[in-house]
Amino acid sequence: MQVNDSQRGRFISLEGGEGAGKSTLLRGLEAHLRAQGVDLVVTREPGGTAVGEAVRGVVLDAANNELCAESELLLMFASRAQLVRQVIEPALAAGQWVLCDRFTDASYAYQGGGRGQPAERIAELERWAAAGLKPDVTLLLDLPVSTGRARAAGRGEADRIEVEGDAFFERVRGTYRARAAAEPARFRLLDASAAPEDVLGQAIASLAHLFAGHAP
Amino acid sequence: MQVNDSQRGRFISLEGGEGAGKSTLLRGLEAHLRAQGVDLVVTREPGGTAVGEAVRGVVLDAANNELCAESELLLMFASRAQLVRQVIEPALAAGQWVLCDRFTDASYAYQGGGRGQPAERIAELERWAAAGLKPDVTLLLDLPVSTGRARAAGRGEADRIEVEGDAFFERVRGTYRARAAAEPARFRLLDASAAPEDVLGQAIASLAHLFAGHAP
Ligand SMILES: Nc1ncnc2c1ncn2[C@@H]1O[C@H](COP(=O)(O)OP(=O)(O)O)[C@@H](O)[C@H]1O
Ligand SMILES: Nc1ncnc2c1ncn2[C@@H]1O[C@H](COP(=O)(O)OP(=O)(O)O)[C@@H](O)[C@H]1O
Ligand SMILES: [Mg+2]
Ligand SMILES: [Mg+2]
Repeated sequence: MQVNDSQRGRFISLEGGEGAGKSTLLRGLEAHLRAQGVDLVVTREPGGTAVGEAVRGVVLDAANNELCAESELLLMFASRAQLVRQVIEPALAAGQWVLCDRFTDASYAYQGGGRGQPAERIAELERWAAAGLKPDVTLLLDLPVSTGRARAAGRGEADRIEVEGDAFFERVRGTYRARAAAEPARFRLLDASAAPEDVLGQAIASLAHLFAGHAP
Repeated sequence: MQVNDSQRGRFISLEGGEGAGKSTLLRGLEAHLRAQGVDLVVTREPGGTAVGEAVRGVVLDAANNELCAESELLLMFASRAQLVRQVIEPALAAGQWVLCDRFTDASYAYQGGGRGQPAERIAELERWAAAGLKPDVTLLLDLPVSTGRARAAGRGEADRIEVEGDAFFERVRGTYRARAAAEPARFRLLDASAAPEDVLGQAIASLAHLFAGHAP
């Protein structure tokens, strides 16, 4: 389907540490955007396709505790390469909006900041595996590591990444914040320690500019 | 375990198209090398580790027919990154020999020649994901595509790669042969259309130089 650029959809990603409230915000934002008449595709990473969900199983399986950092990075981008081509790009080209629970910033934060994979390596994969695709807006749910972990603890069995220590998650948070500071036009930093309705309100206000010149 | 370089093991990979006889030769070579007293690790790609075997399931599953070329390449190297670090390097460092059914040359042949992924992209992954590791000897089992396919047809359900057409497998064969011509010191080109005992004999002769200066 051929559409001109003004009809191209908008791409919004949600980022943040464990228990920051991404999945909670995603449900609230989904309801809000649909109520505005937005034709919306909601997806997540790793996952979102048959291949990606299979990869998610491998990456998050706590039994795969020997998984090396290089392999983890490659698996994340294998899921992403498929998601971009099979789901996100076709939706945006057809004028749909895409709301995604994590995207490439998560690789810089987790596989880069957390595991120490070089940023240039990730940037190179972003270019060809993710086809250089960047969100129009990235909502970063920022909050102290201890607060997020306390929230996430209520969710049951920890996966292979959730079992990491506080130092790991501090590096993740620091990388996210540095990326937000470096790309202020794309990132919106939300105070994720606020109540859920408040976080949703911050997110909605952060997206208002996307509606300018775009009649959903 | 610390060993000096003369005690480092030898790394042998088997390459070739579908039905070339790699798995058959592997069994024969394994028996021969063990009879020579070689402390041998036998493995395969994709696979060879828990993570790699899970990835193998995703890559070869004929139901994943939408898998894009970029994702396929990343999955192959995710399996390889893990195999190199968890199995091959520790074995070689401990003085064991490693016999592997396919290695990085298969990515150049299948994901490169077959699927059109650029060779420089594969070379870059080889550097950091495979840690630049190259086999000491690569045995290339070369035979006409039609002969290999006729042999492989007897094996039952075709996997996601085996269902490709002849043009694909001609590109795979061409890439393998070009690589063998470009790296004559590492490659041994075997006539895989010969009888199994003959192919095994060719392979054994091709490995004789590995024993020079190396008392297994
Ligand atoms: N703003 C909030 N304040 C307090 N608790 C929250 C908030 N947002 C989410 N939670 C709770 O914290 C836990 C983790 O939230 P979740 O949305 O799953 O986080 P994430 O997807 O970022 O890991 C859940 O139990 C959720 O109900
Ligand atoms: N040299 C050979 N001549 C004839 N048939 C062979 C030869 N080597 C293997 N085969 C048969 O061809 C089929 C494919 O062999 P296999 O070793 O599984 O190939 P590959 O692992 O390269 O795909 C098997 O049925 C095997 O018995
Ligand atoms: Mg979540
Ligand atoms: Mg085989």
